[in-house]
Amino acid sequence: MDKFEIAIIGAGPAGLSAAINLKIRNKNFILFGKEAGSAKVTKSEKISNYPGLPDIEGPELSRRFTEHAKALGIEFTDKQVSAIYKNKDSFMLSAGSDIYEAEAVIIASGTENTKALPGEREYVGRGVSYCATCDGNLYKGKNIAVICEGKEHEDEVEYLAALADTLHYIPLFKSELTGENIKLYDSRPSGIKGEMKVSALELRDGSEIPVDGIFILKNVAADVLLGGLEMTDGKIVVGHDMSTNVAGCFACGDCTGYPYQIAKATGEGNTAAHSAIRYLSAAGR
Amino acid sequence: MDKFEIAIIGAGPAGLSAAINLKIRNKNFILFGKEAGSAKVTKSEKISNYPGLPDIEGPELSRRFTEHAKALGIEFTDKQVSAIYKNKDSFMLSAGSDIYEAEAVIIASGTENTKALPGEREYVGRGVSYCATCDGNLYKGKNIAVICEGKEHEDEVEYLAALADTLHYIPLFKSELTGENIKLYDSRPSGIKGEMKVSALELRDGSEIPVDGIFILKNVAADVLLGGLEMTDGKIVVGHDMSTNVAGCFACGDCTGYPYQIAKATGEGNTAAHSAIRYLSAAGR
Repeated sequence: MDKFEIAIIGAGPAGLSAAINLKIRNKNFILFGKEAGSAKVTKSEKISNYPGLPDIEGPELSRRFTEHAKALGIEFTDKQVSAIYKNKDSFMLSAGSDIYEAEAVIIASGTENTKALPGEREYVGRGVSYCATCDGNLYKGKNIAVICEGKEHEDEVEYLAALADTLHYIPLFKSELTGENIKLYDSRPSGIKGEMKVSALELRDGSEIPVDGIFILKNVAADVLLGGLEMTDGKIVVGHDMSTNVAGCFACGDCTGYPYQIAKATGEGNTAAHSAIRYLSAAGR
Repeated sequence: MDKFEIAIIGAGPAGLSAAINLKIRNKNFILFGKEAGSAKVTKSEKISNYPGLPDIEGPELSRRFTEHAKALGIEFTDKQVSAIYKNKDSFMLSAGSDIYEAEAVIIASGTENTKALPGEREYVGRGVSYCATCDGNLYKGKNIAVICEGKEHEDEVEYLAALADTLHYIPLFKSELTGENIKLYDSRPSGIKGEMKVSALELRDGSEIPVDGIFILKNVAADVLLGGLEMTDGKIVVGHDMSTNVAGCFACGDCTGYPYQIAKATGEGNTAAHSAIRYLSAAGR
């Protein structure tokens, strides 16, 4: 098992800013996230309020962020962290089929764009999964539904299609994904049914899809990731130093709430990195 | 008297970031500070952790910030705010010989780099002044001492020399300022003496300079500016939304404390601007 001083969850502006500061301070850290950066930034047509780079296009700012990180030698670990457990003095992170250990954690996972469906939270681990890599193998040859929030998650849909018997695909955006065993739906999901385990996905058009499991590919709410994390209105409660109610866990960027702004995210990432360094140093590590 | 929705005190990275956001949101605001930006940024040789602009020199980043603001049509009001008073629903700001009114205030005044001298706080308004423009005229033909924290304040020293009989000059940096009635001192100040009013400035070398008044040209502590503002260890106490204990007063940047970083300052400026807008909107203004 790989051990780190700090694990950063998310490689958008907040996570990257934290990583840049940790790298400069020679910390031993792991950055979970895609090199492509935040889809939110990439989709922005023009950003006028990132000081020093007036009227920059989203893809260009995203490219500059990634290049800045790569020039410093920062590596991206393109795995989705599906759960974080707090031990006495460290955190265990589950990502794909691997477990990582870190003394401190910086959550920069962005916002959960879609609200949890009725039944979603209840059935996590009992047929509802947020992680194709972690749980895909459990559904070999079975019927599954996959709800997908954005194109950036679609590689996971293809991975699941290769395992499942039939994949009922409910994209929440305009998708052109096709596949022999992929059945595309127009309607949006409305709820999850089951008893001990998930039995069906309900759609807004009133229909039901009987399934063995449901994958929801989206930014997972932070308190689902780390149980006991204090949140208000779906946002992580942080102090001015970006500390959360869990010792050693810091948060930054959109997951801490309003305003949803790039400069705010990079600023908070900077602060979170410095606070995490102070935390490790105070603990005498 | 000029009235504004919002007054920003300070045009460093935090104040400028706030101004950029207020301008984009079409707010009626005034920005107090020098167009040259923060001396701290300008003096930085290389900044490696401002995301998107790797390894940029301080003067270049400062230039980009100023240009960004000017391209948006933001104006700099080069006056030092010497006092802020809270009314029931607004703030009165005293700057130079003028009074301004604002419904909300964003303090982005940086750090007080030098600690207050023994006697300094006690004699404010009784011979100790932080503002050449405001109080210079009181010392026409008199003997004054001027303590100056940095070159960026030196134009005020020249202004005072034109008024005073003798100006005893104690720069806290290497200065080459000369003048007919300017007497330059090598020693640092150690305390302020007086009874009802200031009578002398004490120096570390044990000597005393008898004076009628003492000007201390530096970034003034925020709770001297605005009485009742909650501070800890010389830093303004803020929440995650940059609000202070005074309703309608927000703070951002180095004046809110560690880490002293440009990205942190611009991020907090962004948040403070958005919080001030929300405050005005909630008040139905």
